[in-house]
Amino acid sequence: MTQKLRIAIIGAGRIGYVHAGSVNDTPELELVYVVDPFEENAKKVTAAFGGKVSNDPSAVIASGEIDAVIIGSPTATHIPLLRECIAAGVHALCEKPIDLDVKNVEEFRALANSAKTNITLGFNRRQDPQYKALKAKVASGAIGTVEQVILTSRDPGPAPQGYIAVSGGIFRDMTIHDFDMARNFVPDIVEVTAFGANSFCDYIKEEGDFDNISVIMKGSNNELITVVNSRHAAFGYDQRAEIFGDKGMLQISNLSDTTVKSFTKDGTTAGEPFMDFFLERYADSYRNELKLFIEGIKTGKVLGSTYDDGRAALILADAAHESAHTGKSIKVNLK
Amino acid sequence: MTQKLRIAIIGAGRIGYVHAGSVNDTPELELVYVVDPFEENAKKVTAAFGGKVSNDPSAVIASGEIDAVIIGSPTATHIPLLRECIAAGVHALCEKPIDLDVKNVEEFRALANSAKTNITLGFNRRQDPQYKALKAKVASGAIGTVEQVILTSRDPGPAPQGYIAVSGGIFRDMTIHDFDMARNFVPDIVEVTAFGANSFCDYIKEEGDFDNISVIMKGSNNELITVVNSRHAAFGYDQRAEIFGDKGMLQISNLSDTTVKSFTKDGTTAGEPFMDFFLERYADSYRNELKLFIEGIKTGKVLGSTYDDGRAALILADAAHESAHTGKSIKVNLK
Amino acid sequence: MTQKLRIAIIGAGRIGYVHAGSVNDTPELELVYVVDPFEENAKKVTAAFGGKVSNDPSAVIASGEIDAVIIGSPTATHIPLLRECIAAGVHALCEKPIDLDVKNVEEFRALANSAKTNITLGFNRRQDPQYKALKAKVASGAIGTVEQVILTSRDPGPAPQGYIAVSGGIFRDMTIHDFDMARNFVPDIVEVTAFGANSFCDYIKEEGDFDNISVIMKGSNNELITVVNSRHAAFGYDQRAEIFGDKGMLQISNLSDTTVKSFTKDGTTAGEPFMDFFLERYADSYRNELKLFIEGIKTGKVLGSTYDDGRAALILADAAHESAHTGKSIKVNLK
Amino acid sequence: MTQKLRIAIIGAGRIGYVHAGSVNDTPELELVYVVDPFEENAKKVTAAFGGKVSNDPSAVIASGEIDAVIIGSPTATHIPLLRECIAAGVHALCEKPIDLDVKNVEEFRALANSAKTNITLGFNRRQDPQYKALKAKVASGAIGTVEQVILTSRDPGPAPQGYIAVSGGIFRDMTIHDFDMARNFVPDIVEVTAFGANSFCDYIKEEGDFDNISVIMKGSNNELITVVNSRHAAFGYDQRAEIFGDKGMLQISNLSDTTVKSFTKDGTTAGEPFMDFFLERYADSYRNELKLFIEGIKTGKVLGSTYDDGRAALILADAAHESAHTGKSIKVNLK
Repeated sequence: MTQKLRIAIIGAGRIGYVHAGSVNDTPELELVYVVDPFEENAKKVTAAFGGKVSNDPSAVIASGEIDAVIIGSPTATHIPLLRECIAAGVHALCEKPIDLDVKNVEEFRALANSAKTNITLGFNRRQDPQYKALKAKVASGAIGTVEQVILTSRDPGPAPQGYIAVSGGIFRDMTIHDFDMARNFVPDIVEVTAFGANSFCDYIKEEGDFDNISVIMKGSNNELITVVNSRHAAFGYDQRAEIFGDKGMLQISNLSDTTVKSFTKDGTTAGEPFMDFFLERYADSYRNELKLFIEGIKTGKVLGSTYDDGRAALILADAAHESAHTGKSIKVNLK
Repeated sequence: MTQKLRIAIIGAGRIGYVHAGSVNDTPELELVYVVDPFEENAKKVTAAFGGKVSNDPSAVIASGEIDAVIIGSPTATHIPLLRECIAAGVHALCEKPIDLDVKNVEEFRALANSAKTNITLGFNRRQDPQYKALKAKVASGAIGTVEQVILTSRDPGPAPQGYIAVSGGIFRDMTIHDFDMARNFVPDIVEVTAFGANSFCDYIKEEGDFDNISVIMKGSNNELITVVNSRHAAFGYDQRAEIFGDKGMLQISNLSDTTVKSFTKDGTTAGEPFMDFFLERYADSYRNELKLFIEGIKTGKVLGSTYDDGRAALILADAAHESAHTGKSIKVNLK
Repeated sequence: MTQKLRIAIIGAGRIGYVHAGSVNDTPELELVYVVDPFEENAKKVTAAFGGKVSNDPSAVIASGEIDAVIIGSPTATHIPLLRECIAAGVHALCEKPIDLDVKNVEEFRALANSAKTNITLGFNRRQDPQYKALKAKVASGAIGTVEQVILTSRDPGPAPQGYIAVSGGIFRDMTIHDFDMARNFVPDIVEVTAFGANSFCDYIKEEGDFDNISVIMKGSNNELITVVNSRHAAFGYDQRAEIFGDKGMLQISNLSDTTVKSFTKDGTTAGEPFMDFFLERYADSYRNELKLFIEGIKTGKVLGSTYDDGRAALILADAAHESAHTGKSIKVNLK
Repeated sequence: MTQKLRIAIIGAGRIGYVHAGSVNDTPELELVYVVDPFEENAKKVTAAFGGKVSNDPSAVIASGEIDAVIIGSPTATHIPLLRECIAAGVHALCEKPIDLDVKNVEEFRALANSAKTNITLGFNRRQDPQYKALKAKVASGAIGTVEQVILTSRDPGPAPQGYIAVSGGIFRDMTIHDFDMARNFVPDIVEVTAFGANSFCDYIKEEGDFDNISVIMKGSNNELITVVNSRHAAFGYDQRAEIFGDKGMLQISNLSDTTVKSFTKDGTTAGEPFMDFFLERYADSYRNELKLFIEGIKTGKVLGSTYDDGRAALILADAAHESAHTGKSIKVNLK
């Protein structure tokens, strides 16, 4: 690759802005287009990092001016845009979820998996240094055979009602990261049960969605995975994991900016606040995700999360959704 | 009460020995009888703390020589002995569970709750200083309204097969403490779902029981309670709790004997091992439990766990058992 | 020893009260006398734990009614009372310091060390479970050869002016515990340098004493020991130690009553307050100190701190005092 | 500044390499020259980050091709090069220490302080995010008036004998960072006492230097500063600070790459190893230091450490050296 890889960013939201910055920082990449229906959003990105503005993703994909796209547009556009990318020979890093309807995901599956272009799914959390270190330690045999996985994810506060309304529900929108992380440690999950609750947010209830949930999953090797989510957390973004094996236990905890501890009459040790939300907490993992995508294009392999990872997470989300609404555990087949 | 309270200990096992020590340390109590079908066991206790040996609990209860019993004999004897205690006007501190069959518990309920003698259930964990401090902090409003409770209990290693065979299963034998602890924070639980797994112990599987489990419960006020148990833990007895509310989160963690930390080339900070098992970890709570029982006798009230607490924990255990075997969530009514 | 050991407590202050409680809890001991010039103080102790009241320590020592004394009366009385104890064949557990004037300590040394009765010094801190665990770990070779010792001791608040006036100064009164602890890890100390400051307390300055100090000492094997003291600490009693060797480092930190951690918007992790002051923090070590004294009487050996330990701590305190006032390091010979 | 600032790096060692990378990453800077007597070293840097190679710093300074230099050549060259920089109108970021002989520092002082070019000293540690957060917290009044400062610095292992031989001794070479950090919290220090020891390294002893040291300093406002250093640490680079004030205490501790904790039968909690040495641990502070230097050039002010900061650290180092060799505390005047 003697020439720069030409990139378009489709969807000029917060994650699009972050990716544009990473593209700009990477000498072998060139930001050619930023696409958004709201020209103002796209211009914010191009003002900072260069590139041309467009409001027509299909035209950009077909333009011949780009080699790869980063798709962060609304979920419903993902499969249509991926289809156009494959047709045009354009590589794609696509935000999760693939689609809210698993039927669409199944229909497109064969094409996605046989595509000559690189289709990588944006499950950034797997590329976070903390989770990577955790996985490396598990892989080293430090705790023997994995028996239990406990994942805790709580957002600082709920997304606005408009977002909730089109999110597909907490399992498909928020827990989906935990479903993917569960598979990072227990790839073959076979059964799901879930409870959802409406504890604090009226507009989430109005939308027929839950604000707090718990999920248990079973792996084909008798692993038990437990997930706890909340749409709020007074103390900030809460992202923890515990892996329990027959030889020990590993945990990762929340990150603070500094190690400063205070000891005063009001409280004996008070650490620094946690990093507030995903763009800050997972800054490294967004960079790593992009890097893996680029490396994957060079080597002709999907090195990050695959289309089938995206499909698996959605199947688990659907199962949890169904379980929480029917009171039955749901068997799943991720193969 | 100018005279000493005369105590019989029925069941000279490990907990019986601990209680005998506490009775011996308490000036207002007198250890009169230690009862066990194996005289040898009983003699070990009387050798250390005094008292007469018997192998006939009914005779002891009816003897007129005692005011109160501490029942630690096998589960099947609990209700019959409690019935004799009520008849004889003898107070009883009875180990959990009341019975393995909830029908027997329901049948005896009216009598137990109308008894003039004190019937206290041995859910010692509520009286542990850590859990008491946690509860006090929740009660102080520090974290607002309770929304989620996460309980982790792992034993250092599995009980022997003979014990497992008659235990009633992990939910009724081990998780029962977590069911009671769940109700310590969320008294009114309305629905239960559970998964069990056979991850590591062949003889537990042979007995048709699980070695790892996860449970989710829902409270009537939309609380979600999540329990994780294992019958083994390479790193020792694992007893933790997390309470999440709309204003914050509280956690209690495992206890070590000392605060010594090591920093060497092999590992950067290595704390002391955890206290190994329940008699050591919950030494204070056994003492507190006995103290509350005695105080309750004096004041004519059950100050520790009630018969209905014992019944509720069993109903939850039964529901978890059923859910884990049927794949359905189970609605419960604890009233 | 078929009979109970008969004990007199001389000095009915806070530590005297604690020791009286321990005597009362120990079946093989009998509290016979509590001696204090203020009868009211003595009566508080006897009301709780029995024994007769006296205001004449010499008469009690000579009475033939006691086997051992616990001396907690003012420092100036220590040597005269020890002399009477030796003459009367009475064992003595004597509070630190032996005397404020090292000349008196030297004069009495031969007699004290050749006494047939047991003379144990009250450096309780060595018997604290934390420091004992630390020492055991050092002794196990976990960190190789000891090179540096760092001791931090800060009181919650300064003693009243009247106490400061007769205390002999911060080095002889407060740092003396750190001098003894230093020798617990580096017995042979050969040189001392110290700085004192007047940072916050006017009446301590009025008395010609310091409120904050730092000391460095050198051991005969090239160890460096660093001590930091303050007469106040907004966050409570601060008692920490760090031992650094060629193979690693060990630390012990402050104790809290519980492991409860809070996570709220105001601070991310806030532990429980530390145990407030010495009677609470070192409750175990007072008990252990008494136990060792009794065991020593039985076995004919001083098992706790010896007279020469008390002498060494005073020599180091004098050296620090002199160094802080002259700006010169002081060579010492503890042999 | 419409044009790029043209930079020369004098001294192509490890820190020179790091600075060259930062220069390369900063769009407004251009790396023009890398100067080193060993052409090979210089070429390693230019191969990675561009620029021309030279072995003649004086020629480069006088060339008119550069606006600023980063001086990392041997200590004896610092003042001569700074003199040439001032003459040539070239800004200089100069590594510590200014010189090993305070006479030279005093002689050059007036010229350095009246220079129209920017002379910034390379005390990077002040620009580290941890220490900056600590200072910000102190400045916020969180702990009231500063009374005690405790600084711990231990290197993973000793520098080679050749380096030790020309280092000026541990106080001028290693502790000098702690002297500067002490002044970050207590600018006006008035007295110094120090002990040095030879605990483990024969060749350091051969060079007449110490391998372990402790220092106490007094501030003009009665602050006590305590420093502990070692030339080795089995557990890695040890960099900690504690600030004690009348309203509380603040601490910063060592950094790990991840939050992973392990719990196994061998040890209950084992964190990740610490970052190994200064280039990794203080990567951010080197970048911040350079940034401040550049910002200072633009605004016409020294925003990082000044020449007089460098002078003060050297005076304190000399005082500690003298104290450790004479057994006397040394009064200093940093004004």
